Amino acid sequence: MTVPSCHAGQHHLLKARRLGIDTYQEAVIYMRPVCRSEGFEAQARILVKLNGREVIATLNVVTSDLLAQGEAGLSEAAWRHLGAREGDTLSLAHTPYLESLGRVRAKVYGEHLEEADYRAIVRDVAAGRYADVQLASFMAACAGNRMDPGEILSLTRAMVATGERLDWGRTPVADKHCVGGLPGNRTTPIVVPIVAAWGLTIPKTSSRAITSPAGTADTMETLAPVDLDLPHMRRVVEREGGCIVWGGAVSLSPADDVLIRVERALDLDSEGQLVASVLSKKAAAGSTHVVIDIPVGPTAKVRTPEAARTLAGHLESVGGALGLAVRACHSDGSQPVGRGIGPALEARDVLAVLNNAPGAPVDLRDRSLDLAGILLELGGGLPAGAGRLQAEAILREGRAWRKFQAICEAQGGLREPPKAPHRHAVGAPHAGRVTFIDNRRLARVAKLAGAPGDPAAGLDLHVRLGERVAAGQPLFTVHADSPGGLDYALSFAQEGETILTLETEGVAAR
Amino acid sequence: MTVPSCHAGQHHLLKARRLGIDTYQEAVIYMRPVCRSEGFEAQARILVKLNGREVIATLNVVTSDLLAQGEAGLSEAAWRHLGAREGDTLSLAHTPYLESLGRVRAKVYGEHLEEADYRAIVRDVAAGRYADVQLASFMAACAGNRMDPGEILSLTRAMVATGERLDWGRTPVADKHCVGGLPGNRTTPIVVPIVAAWGLTIPKTSSRAITSPAGTADTMETLAPVDLDLPHMRRVVEREGGCIVWGGAVSLSPADDVLIRVERALDLDSEGQLVASVLSKKAAAGSTHVVIDIPVGPTAKVRTPEAARTLAGHLESVGGALGLAVRACHSDGSQPVGRGIGPALEARDVLAVLNNAPGAPVDLRDRSLDLAGILLELGGGLPAGAGRLQAEAILREGRAWRKFQAICEAQGGLREPPKAPHRHAVGAPHAGRVTFIDNRRLARVAKLAGAPGDPAAGLDLHVRLGERVAAGQPLFTVHADSPGGLDYALSFAQEGETILTLETEGVAAR
Repeated sequence: MTVPSCHAGQHHLLKARRLGIDTYQEAVIYMRPVCRSEGFEAQARILVKLNGREVIATLNVVTSDLLAQGEAGLSEAAWRHLGAREGDTLSLAHTPYLESLGRVRAKVYGEHLEEADYRAIVRDVAAGRYADVQLASFMAACAGNRMDPGEILSLTRAMVATGERLDWGRTPVADKHCVGGLPGNRTTPIVVPIVAAWGLTIPKTSSRAITSPAGTADTMETLAPVDLDLPHMRRVVEREGGCIVWGGAVSLSPADDVLIRVERALDLDSEGQLVASVLSKKAAAGSTHVVIDIPVGPTAKVRTPEAARTLAGHLESVGGALGLAVRACHSDGSQPVGRGIGPALEARDVLAVLNNAPGAPVDLRDRSLDLAGILLELGGGLPAGAGRLQAEAILREGRAWRKFQAICEAQGGLREPPKAPHRHAVGAPHAGRVTFIDNRRLARVAKLAGAPGDPAAGLDLHVRLGERVAAGQPLFTVHADSPGGLDYALSFAQEGETILTLETEGVAAR
Repeated sequence: MTVPSCHAGQHHLLKARRLGIDTYQEAVIYMRPVCRSEGFEAQARILVKLNGREVIATLNVVTSDLLAQGEAGLSEAAWRHLGAREGDTLSLAHTPYLESLGRVRAKVYGEHLEEADYRAIVRDVAAGRYADVQLASFMAACAGNRMDPGEILSLTRAMVATGERLDWGRTPVADKHCVGGLPGNRTTPIVVPIVAAWGLTIPKTSSRAITSPAGTADTMETLAPVDLDLPHMRRVVEREGGCIVWGGAVSLSPADDVLIRVERALDLDSEGQLVASVLSKKAAAGSTHVVIDIPVGPTAKVRTPEAARTLAGHLESVGGALGLAVRACHSDGSQPVGRGIGPALEARDVLAVLNNAPGAPVDLRDRSLDLAGILLELGGGLPAGAGRLQAEAILREGRAWRKFQAICEAQGGLREPPKAPHRHAVGAPHAGRVTFIDNRRLARVAKLAGAPGDPAAGLDLHVRLGERVAAGQPLFTVHADSPGGLDYALSFAQEGETILTLETEGVAAR
């Protein structure tokens, strides 16, 4: 059985059909098996062209009557990437052999890669030429300290080179970042208005969660729109001196966004790619002075002071090589910051601090003031010690809150975070003192409850390290949008995993 | 919008619909977004149950009218795994958290894993609980000498434990294996009939190609059926003393088959997984005496004598720990063996050797006799040096050919390998002496032509290392089932890649 349109010389023409299948961003093309005679069967990846755009899609062969003869179905990601309309004529060809995959293979086998190698890999990744399994092998090959400092710099430069690069026409341009891994550590929405209120420029782009229950962009999105395009972002910064937007919307490092999607599926962060991801976005965002928070604790992303020093060293030296003034500082990562874990619950804590509410979480306030203070010294020229005092005054006098409201208005309007309809408190199985909190398992409870996909989902932590609790006293409350999410999170929380350790008379127990 | 059948307590019930989508063995479930309220959106993986069987499937949300309300679509792999029929009621639940993924993550970060870890990983892999990206990260984390000998033994034992284990009720049971990487090295269909004709038991299971243009099972399949179930395989061995079948059909190491599928997509072999893959299948197949051929050459899978020694050491020591007598020996891997590369073209060479045809490839004959000779000594008790002479006599007297025919008949009937309709010879660009052959690029040409998916596709190599050729003299001929495959292979072959190096008067040129 042969379709005439299948034999147009080197290229094969098929009518585009939107199947409405969401494949988690992977480009997939669905085809009837009629083109076997042209040799498409042997390769799983096909080059699809339409109106000057192209994408490499994974072939799924459809043997049912889902597709009519002469039709090819596209996944939502492929449809959007090509800007296709129903019935458009797609041109299909064999995938050119990707030389850069040979370099990924070399890295898997432990070879050192050069900057040209990383450029080739990052260019192909950003162009959507890698299948998800290929991205996964690249991630795993680079994890576990398998990139030396030169390779990290090469990867960072390659990432900067593939995206847009912003120019604010002024200097200094301040920025901050947290390497993550500590639930509730949501200082950005507090630091940005303080620094902007003082007069420094701070056009902050944040990411969505990679492996955590909330990224800053997820949290901020419950308070104001964050999907701003570049002209809109510029208007906000021109007017208010700062913004808090999602970095993905301005495509500063398109390869990074592709890699982060697979990192999320793997629950994996590689150190070298972390440095490249952070600094490439800072450099592309036009930042000149950057403070980076590295929380350290047994269950934080960075577990030991030694690992934090190594990471800080990479961040400062690679930053320096890129022309950025970077200060990387450690902070306590032994327990979550604030009370809420999950986008809306964290937003509630942020608002309490900005409003100087009496019950506002002290630790979130302190950490935010520390970071804002460093930025006022690093980028603002205040003498050592004066930054923190200045930041505190700006917060106390309500200037930070007014600036935050103004920024939200400029971004599209301040809004109220949603609240979850389903809640359940988990009580202490016995009396005791809280001696250990497993951040990772706690974060997993919040994720199983639905965060960050459901912004109101997550949990509220009611106790701190060192606190004494009575039997039955609530330790944390799970919030979920659905009974299913609540059950799922609670069944994990009660499965005998040690999330919080309660010590009684010197004996550790759950 | 809510579907009543979506709320049956903890489990959600949907009608099965066969969408006929081939996702390359990954289990995928297609669902309308109506079950979002039950929290399925947040997880990409869903546990699907039917009639006591279960599979973990990747969720693809369908926003078009492809599915009716109350329906869930299944990919072909999921459909087969569940043994579903149209309209069956599927029970869906959240995926239990896979503890073994935490161990994969640890391995990615460079930790040493224990046997219990590998058992947990292999059990979940064999049960289809890993997504392809998770399999890919495991493969990459284990590649590049990142498994120590203890870990390789652990992984091997874990693989043996997950599958069936055959017992032939006798000893010795001979076996052979080649670590591959050398195109055309198709000795198995010659060694097995020699050894079986002498009287040794040799129930040989072979794999299909992983990253090469042909595996022994692919080649053998052009001569006789190889998809034998266990009872059929036993009947063949009882009657003829040997067989040459596909190992996947008897599920000796189900986890290995899953891993090989992703290895193929990644074009990646990890040393530790190679040892575990080979030896777990030998142990599970009930073999007691095993010879392993390791071709060594600059473009073979094993590139240096040192690497071959390391690999041979792992194979012999891990084999010993499993109770197997293993002899691993090096062979010349600097150029392909025989003339054909691709299933049917290699089968033609095999038949020539078995028939003592005047033009039969001498190298293929020699290597087969070497390996058969070692087996007759190792498992058959012949004194050193006598094995090879005995093997040669069996081949020369036609006993091997008669035994091969009998084995093929027992497996379902000897048949003629197919021939490809499209061929093109690539000539020498100038006169010179062949000083280098790139096995990997040559294999890639054969794969681009369609091998092993198209069994008649591949290439015939007309020259050997050291040979002098005239300008225009054919170097190799590409065979393909379609003009598209032929074009694809030829465009790669002519892209300026150095597949064969021709030296003229001391100057290397292409």
